[in-house]
Amino acid sequence: MNPLHQRIGVLGNGQLGRMMAMAGYPLGKTFGFYGPQGHSPAAFLGANFADGADDELDKLIATSDIITFETENTHVEWVKKIHEQKPVYPGIDALYTAQHRGREKAMFNELGIPCATHVLVDSLAELKQAVEQIGLPAILKTTTEGYDGKGQFRIENNTQIHQAWQAIGQRQAVLEGLVKFERELSLIAVRNPQGQEVFYPLVENIHHQGILRLTLAPAQNIDEHIQATAEGYMAKLLAKLNYVGVLTLELFQTTEGLVANEMAPRVHNSGHWTIEGAQTSQFENHIRAISGLPLGSCQIRQSHCAMINIIGETGPVQTVLRMPKAHLHLYDKAERQGRKLGHITLVADSAAELQSQLQQLQAFLPQAS
Amino acid sequence: MNPLHQRIGVLGNGQLGRMMAMAGYPLGKTFGFYGPQGHSPAAFLGANFADGADDELDKLIATSDIITFETENTHVEWVKKIHEQKPVYPGIDALYTAQHRGREKAMFNELGIPCATHVLVDSLAELKQAVEQIGLPAILKTTTEGYDGKGQFRIENNTQIHQAWQAIGQRQAVLEGLVKFERELSLIAVRNPQGQEVFYPLVENIHHQGILRLTLAPAQNIDEHIQATAEGYMAKLLAKLNYVGVLTLELFQTTEGLVANEMAPRVHNSGHWTIEGAQTSQFENHIRAISGLPLGSCQIRQSHCAMINIIGETGPVQTVLRMPKAHLHLYDKAERQGRKLGHITLVADSAAELQSQLQQLQAFLPQAS
Repeated sequence: MNPLHQRIGVLGNGQLGRMMAMAGYPLGKTFGFYGPQGHSPAAFLGANFADGADDELDKLIATSDIITFETENTHVEWVKKIHEQKPVYPGIDALYTAQHRGREKAMFNELGIPCATHVLVDSLAELKQAVEQIGLPAILKTTTEGYDGKGQFRIENNTQIHQAWQAIGQRQAVLEGLVKFERELSLIAVRNPQGQEVFYPLVENIHHQGILRLTLAPAQNIDEHIQATAEGYMAKLLAKLNYVGVLTLELFQTTEGLVANEMAPRVHNSGHWTIEGAQTSQFENHIRAISGLPLGSCQIRQSHCAMINIIGETGPVQTVLRMPKAHLHLYDKAERQGRKLGHITLVADSAAELQSQLQQLQAFLPQAS
Repeated sequence: MNPLHQRIGVLGNGQLGRMMAMAGYPLGKTFGFYGPQGHSPAAFLGANFADGADDELDKLIATSDIITFETENTHVEWVKKIHEQKPVYPGIDALYTAQHRGREKAMFNELGIPCATHVLVDSLAELKQAVEQIGLPAILKTTTEGYDGKGQFRIENNTQIHQAWQAIGQRQAVLEGLVKFERELSLIAVRNPQGQEVFYPLVENIHHQGILRLTLAPAQNIDEHIQATAEGYMAKLLAKLNYVGVLTLELFQTTEGLVANEMAPRVHNSGHWTIEGAQTSQFENHIRAISGLPLGSCQIRQSHCAMINIIGETGPVQTVLRMPKAHLHLYDKAERQGRKLGHITLVADSAAELQSQLQQLQAFLPQAS
């Protein structure tokens, strides 16, 4: 066995765990996954433990040296239990904060990181009050368990308040004032237990119906000041949370500067381009970080890069295979509307080359509407 | 399930199968391995079937859509048995030819591919006769099962003939005249069932005590004519064998041109640099080929690339992790003298940068002797 060998346990067995494993094996790691039974994206890439049953979690803990998780919707209780026995990263604080919009925004405020005006609401009455305070349009978001635009309702006028409350399931939520933004960006950073921090370049993300469809890496026309500002916000979060692993910060770029949208305590869809696009992928850097290894370079390998999500149906993937600088990543999932089935990475040496590649892959992109 | 999904069975469960699997999962493939039981490099990356037991091979066949193999030392009988039930690539002809130096050289001769003078010998008497015919120094090589310089004896003078015959185990062998070469090169090509062929650039290989230690990609100072000549030889082999998958041709560069040393019907150690160094790795292209998919570009991604084998002991791998353009690949094998435990890929934008990287990794390279 080599000196880097460690058994990594992952809570979750989706595509993020799958890609973590593929990045971790070359470092000599092995993997175990705790997730829904049956055919899952990570099922073939390590040992499997069925979630739900308590003793299966015990088995994962017993057979792992270090544990991590795939999603902010991980039960804090599981992580607390693990923490008593084995190192688990990113830790409880990060998970507890990031899985609740109210707590997350409170931390942004505390650290002086600009974010949308917002009010926490626990009832329809409180929602009505919040609408008066913030004004419309505004977005009502459940405090927990939202992803890919789920658990959100955009309130345009007063007649929709009741409908919005129903739509999100009459549960605790945050009403957010609308941020007028020019574009959506994200910053991915990595920190190891020794405190080494590395930052990928800011990328631009294009969503459609709440789902990420296209990432452009690096985001174009980012001056050094913007990158530095984003890294400054990120550094505050990393320090505050004594963070270990990959942390993602979604940002709005506005005429008045950057505004934080939300953070994700994990490898992130907007970082998938790094597998071929950066010297070290976000997945490898996450594994390096939680293993206490030196972090790898975040430098982009070719000047222009893009990541297209494959959503709902697999589509004309042979077209992708015929393109010399396109890289296909399928997650081995069944087709279903709105589901992330895979992604495509494009690398190019100029903006024009990237545009031409994107043109050839229009079938994978949402049609302008 | 996506339209590219197929179950790939691999005869063997070493590092080549491991890296095939890591390249194949993103295409939506799953893997099963037939090899020695216990901790093996590929064991965690798919289903496992213990070799030796006949019914385990049946299980591999039953649960695979396509089958391939890791080494030319694969039993032809296994491949024949599989061939009756499932597609198996590269086929029986390629395996039968490549696993026997006598047959291999006969094919080189038939196709007009230059190779060393040689005589097949079945006894000590024949060996003595062959020495008279070819002259000394010459190299005696077993016809089958040689790898990493094993099964070879260099005969310098007549007093060593008996010793040589003992050393290789008194078995069928080929006596080869010594080729005076400037350097060792190899060419890796890929062909799919539709007949599409792609060629990686020629690389230079540096061996020590029979084991590959360093590959430089592309080989420097290769004029177009040499690349074209090598591709011409390769194209003849691919066509003759109706080849599907990755085929490697080891060549000597001499003052009189290229001389074929041997071929390997598989992904090859001298192609490991392609994981980060080329647009499509040899492993992905092998999986694409045997699945009947379009082949990927063999273009190099950065101008200079190198691959260092990690032999015998794992060594100071943290040094590798601290270098921004170095990529570590461990195979999760126990240390043992002369054993391939992993490799390191270096990518660089100039010869000087590559030299500086190699300088930092001297601990992994054999000392000049």
